[in-house]
Amino acid sequence: MTHVDRNAASSIDPIFRPKSIAVVGASRQKHSIGWAILHNLLGCEFQGEVAPVNPAAPVVHSLRCHTSVETIPGPVDLAILVVPSRFALEAVESCGRKGVKGVIVITAGFKEVGEAGARLEQEMLGVARRYGMRIVGPNCMGVINTDPAVRLQATFSATEPLPGNIAFSSQSGALGEAALSSMRDLGLGLSMFVSLGNKVDVSGNDVIEYWEHDPRTKVILMYLESFGNPSKFVEIARRVTATKPILAVKSGRTAAGARAAASHTGSLAGADIAVESLLAQCGVIRAASIQELFVYASAFSTLPVPRGDRVAILTNSGGPGILATDACVQLGLKMTALSPATQEAMRRVLAPEASVVNPVDMIASATGPSYEACLKALVADDHVDAVITIFTSLDMFDNVGVANGILKGIGATTKPVLVVFMGKAGAQEAIGLLKAAELPVYTFPEDAANALFALVRYRRWLERPVGRIVAFTDFQPERISAILRPCRAAHRTQLTLAEAQSVLEGAGIPVAPWREAADPDAAAAAAAELGFPVALKVSSAAIIHKSDVGGVKLKVRTPEDVRRFAADLLRGARAADPQATLVVQRMVSGTETIFGVSVDPKFGPLLMFGLGGIFVEVLKDVAFRVHPISDVDAGEMVRSLKAFPILAGTRGGKAVCLSALEQTLLRLDQLLTAFPEIRELDINPFFASPDREGCVAADARITLAE
Amino acid sequence: MTHVDRNAASSIDPIFRPKSIAVVGASRQKHSIGWAILHNLLGCEFQGEVAPVNPAAPVVHSLRCHTSVETIPGPVDLAILVVPSRFALEAVESCGRKGVKGVIVITAGFKEVGEAGARLEQEMLGVARRYGMRIVGPNCMGVINTDPAVRLQATFSATEPLPGNIAFSSQSGALGEAALSSMRDLGLGLSMFVSLGNKVDVSGNDVIEYWEHDPRTKVILMYLESFGNPSKFVEIARRVTATKPILAVKSGRTAAGARAAASHTGSLAGADIAVESLLAQCGVIRAASIQELFVYASAFSTLPVPRGDRVAILTNSGGPGILATDACVQLGLKMTALSPATQEAMRRVLAPEASVVNPVDMIASATGPSYEACLKALVADDHVDAVITIFTSLDMFDNVGVANGILKGIGATTKPVLVVFMGKAGAQEAIGLLKAAELPVYTFPEDAANALFALVRYRRWLERPVGRIVAFTDFQPERISAILRPCRAAHRTQLTLAEAQSVLEGAGIPVAPWREAADPDAAAAAAAELGFPVALKVSSAAIIHKSDVGGVKLKVRTPEDVRRFAADLLRGARAADPQATLVVQRMVSGTETIFGVSVDPKFGPLLMFGLGGIFVEVLKDVAFRVHPISDVDAGEMVRSLKAFPILAGTRGGKAVCLSALEQTLLRLDQLLTAFPEIRELDINPFFASPDREGCVAADARITLAE
Repeated sequence: MTHVDRNAASSIDPIFRPKSIAVVGASRQKHSIGWAILHNLLGCEFQGEVAPVNPAAPVVHSLRCHTSVETIPGPVDLAILVVPSRFALEAVESCGRKGVKGVIVITAGFKEVGEAGARLEQEMLGVARRYGMRIVGPNCMGVINTDPAVRLQATFSATEPLPGNIAFSSQSGALGEAALSSMRDLGLGLSMFVSLGNKVDVSGNDVIEYWEHDPRTKVILMYLESFGNPSKFVEIARRVTATKPILAVKSGRTAAGARAAASHTGSLAGADIAVESLLAQCGVIRAASIQELFVYASAFSTLPVPRGDRVAILTNSGGPGILATDACVQLGLKMTALSPATQEAMRRVLAPEASVVNPVDMIASATGPSYEACLKALVADDHVDAVITIFTSLDMFDNVGVANGILKGIGATTKPVLVVFMGKAGAQEAIGLLKAAELPVYTFPEDAANALFALVRYRRWLERPVGRIVAFTDFQPERISAILRPCRAAHRTQLTLAEAQSVLEGAGIPVAPWREAADPDAAAAAAAELGFPVALKVSSAAIIHKSDVGGVKLKVRTPEDVRRFAADLLRGARAADPQATLVVQRMVSGTETIFGVSVDPKFGPLLMFGLGGIFVEVLKDVAFRVHPISDVDAGEMVRSLKAFPILAGTRGGKAVCLSALEQTLLRLDQLLTAFPEIRELDINPFFASPDREGCVAADARITLAE
Repeated sequence: MTHVDRNAASSIDPIFRPKSIAVVGASRQKHSIGWAILHNLLGCEFQGEVAPVNPAAPVVHSLRCHTSVETIPGPVDLAILVVPSRFALEAVESCGRKGVKGVIVITAGFKEVGEAGARLEQEMLGVARRYGMRIVGPNCMGVINTDPAVRLQATFSATEPLPGNIAFSSQSGALGEAALSSMRDLGLGLSMFVSLGNKVDVSGNDVIEYWEHDPRTKVILMYLESFGNPSKFVEIARRVTATKPILAVKSGRTAAGARAAASHTGSLAGADIAVESLLAQCGVIRAASIQELFVYASAFSTLPVPRGDRVAILTNSGGPGILATDACVQLGLKMTALSPATQEAMRRVLAPEASVVNPVDMIASATGPSYEACLKALVADDHVDAVITIFTSLDMFDNVGVANGILKGIGATTKPVLVVFMGKAGAQEAIGLLKAAELPVYTFPEDAANALFALVRYRRWLERPVGRIVAFTDFQPERISAILRPCRAAHRTQLTLAEAQSVLEGAGIPVAPWREAADPDAAAAAAAELGFPVALKVSSAAIIHKSDVGGVKLKVRTPEDVRRFAADLLRGARAADPQATLVVQRMVSGTETIFGVSVDPKFGPLLMFGLGGIFVEVLKDVAFRVHPISDVDAGEMVRSLKAFPILAGTRGGKAVCLSALEQTLLRLDQLLTAFPEIRELDINPFFASPDREGCVAADARITLAE
């Protein structure tokens, strides 16, 4: 099956590659939406047949109008609906009867206006499902496909898109219009575009999968406001990004605000952390703004991925060269050391005052041939993975000569070269030459550096080991079930400390040696068995924050003290919970860490890891990932902490056993897969130490779903 | 004295406001620099007289050419030199004889090409000084003044600048050209422009002071690569920013790379920390890129400073509204809660589906009158300090109507309103209307949010207490001199621990009780006097890192142990330094902090404060300021740490005495003022505790200049 065949098999193919279109609600009124859609379809020379539908108008835009989709002679692949929402249901039904395969519902007035609209939307979906039709929208601005064999401009945008290799999916119509206009201004070419609107049927996931196999699409851009099905998105995006880059702006970073949550993990997982983790886990390059998205896109749509992060900068003026160097170094790109041969080759053609070390400053006397010779030397240098070439144009310079020099210098290299063309008055022709040769051209050096860094991030993703979800064979689902079943039966959401620690042990997570004790004598016996000093802790399903109510006594050193404190603790606890018992636990030590799970209402379970105490509470230095995580994810989580050097051994200290930490994360992940009813889990503290045996949980809290 | 008078009194006034100009090296060759300068002067209709000088050409650009400046009849205020560098000295001399007051040396080939050029430059300066002439350049692109009474375009730029209220100083000519071109594209108007080149005479400081009193200049922009005189810059900029904003891009952030330094402080002070601190201390708003500089500038040049940081967002489309909200919240701006009256007023004019809570989404049916009514309500709302109004334009919308609605809605408000105009195809007329009314218009919501935040930062600076440099009266300069004098006499740069601690005490910084002891018996006696446990430390000018060589013994608890360890320590130390003694010091405890001083080769002394141990070594969580610091600076240093909550009391702990920490910083500052020979100083640790008496230094290291 070739790529094209696979796409043809897709149910949304009739939407992007229709052979015939009906515009239902086509209008004679200039600049109305019903007019603009038809105007665009005809203006862009859609290669199939277009039929307007409007019972009130005999002719629209020189085309004979039909009273209904059903009266159009011949088949209709795609219907575009611009009728008022109260007529939408009837129109979709009519399309179904006609045998239409796809419907784009431009019409607004559905879910976005409230309950009634949401119901109407669902009814419409029901009709479409019944007839096997796919729907884009409602409340959207339409679809574009610049393929010369199709030439579909089925939006009401005033912007005529340039053809190219960028596919763009926008959840917001307004943003889509702004994006189309900006892309046109920047000379960025589209393969396809879709405004998804309310996403009643066709989703972002559907279009990514469609574009995965589109040979004209080299890079996928998304403007996202929400994920319909986050885990499906991760699965699809992870596969697609292995062959095609996905660049995304996700808005609503801060919209959700602070959520009240009882657990550490929940309160640390801000609204955006889940999104950030989710995009990172599936290799989607996130841009901070629409502007940055296009800065990235112009590089991804034209350039190969660099083989490394060593960059050379070539400039005809000092200031912009310094700005580029600054930006590269701050992003973590490496300013490469040029080989002596490269330096010599450049020295031969440049003025004596020129600097041939990186950044190479050819000074203002540089001409087209200088650019050519230096670029040739730079792209041939084994120490160079990518080049940023800067030209600051002045009136007396031969802009076109420089552009040609740059093109000749680059030749057939497979290394990415980014161009910065500053002071462009009178340089439009030269810039046009470079863009025509598929080079990204920026006005400012910082943008070129940012774009190059995005390419490097993508390469790192491509090179990242695939990773695997680990299933430990010593995992004891029956033991855990035996604990959780009675809780669920009793409609109890909070586990006792003893239960929570048993669940961890069932998942294979080591816990500091402990015994449950129901009275002071049993506690003393347990302590003697475990060895002193011990900790005494209240174990109760009713007392959630035991430390807050004095339910913990640490470093108890004698049997007498155990008896005395145990009696105190039990007396206090049983006032609130007659079934409270004690956990007697051997005191352990090590580097305090914290593991956690919290369930995001949209993204499902998140796993958290951090160092304990002030690192979590004051510095918020924690790592999050969306469940499920692979072994590679677990390794990255541990290593991504700012305080990682403490775990890795600093000031002469020994490194803790990192694999014990990673394994704990993977075991928690397995626990979540097996027991999705777990809503919150904290292991705080988990003591990390150089020996694997010294790495143990010393407290646990688990909450189940209602 | 009026503003204009003050400027007229400036020695650089003849450069920006000449009545007559000689172009020395004027050329007939089109697009040469000597041609372009004359072409620009005439093209922009300079209001004074222009005389070309070129002994080889009778007429240039229709003007009779003079063989020398001296043969021009009548006075010459300003000479612009475009002659080759080998003729420069002679030309300047000739200008001097003629009585010229200012010279712009466009000519390159001076300091930037090496030793000989640097010498030539200094000779040229000597000649100018002799005749009382000021020089801009050399190696620069010239000067612009758009004042209609002057109309000076004395650069070789191909860009004709728009008149306006922005003054721009560029250290790089190339960058200046790019900036002029971008400003023209963005519709940003200049009051004056200067390309400073090698800054042999006229500096950035000079032009800031000149623009301080220029009534046409509302905002000052700078592109900086280096500071000639940082402390002078701080003094001037601090004064100017109290009335006019200064926005700056400083490049070379990472150029200096890591500097080898023996002290903690030195190794933590990266190349950019001094710049960042220096700009922050004098209220200069730093932009990360030239692009961001212009995003800020378009707001500063048109808008008033907001009275607070409560922002309202008004939009006709959801997506861009969310992007704007995200950006505002992430920057720390407050999304205000609108008053019920405002919400009601908007509800009356908007569609029922519109949202009248912030961000206000008028939905796509909004028209000019909707913008007018809503903006009126928003700017009148006491809960609103600033408004971002977003319009996403579609083909069917009346762009001009919306622009007029926005203008009417804003009316005469004194609150800043920023406009985002997205999807601008066909909207040029509307955007032109808004810009003509002096509103900043952005293409993307994030830019508007960034610009507003820059205004808010500037307001915070304006509202910041002035602060004062504190001179403590118990400071004992004689005591400190008595310690430093013999060191200098012996050409010794390293102080012993005993000397360093004495210096601190002389500066009024409390040190944990200690005695110097030369033998084990004296040490035991000292320990008995101080009280156990004590620390024993080697005090030697030769042993810099005493802990590394086992020169420290902590928590010594008995007189016998003191004797034994003292003997050990002295034996070891005296092998390296026969004059080594011991410091016996009472063990103290508290929250470990660290104070430090290091001298940056360009910026002079930097003061550092941080929490000790991993906070400094792993997390690099430290605050820097350039000496001298005020009491306000000291307060900000302590509070700016990420780990500040630890000092302020977290997890139920008590706050440490913050004023003791601030006072220690101010006393170190006073020490640096009085003894500039101090190059490095570490107090590590300094124990902070809730009681002022418990806040003491427990170790010190001081290095003097060679």
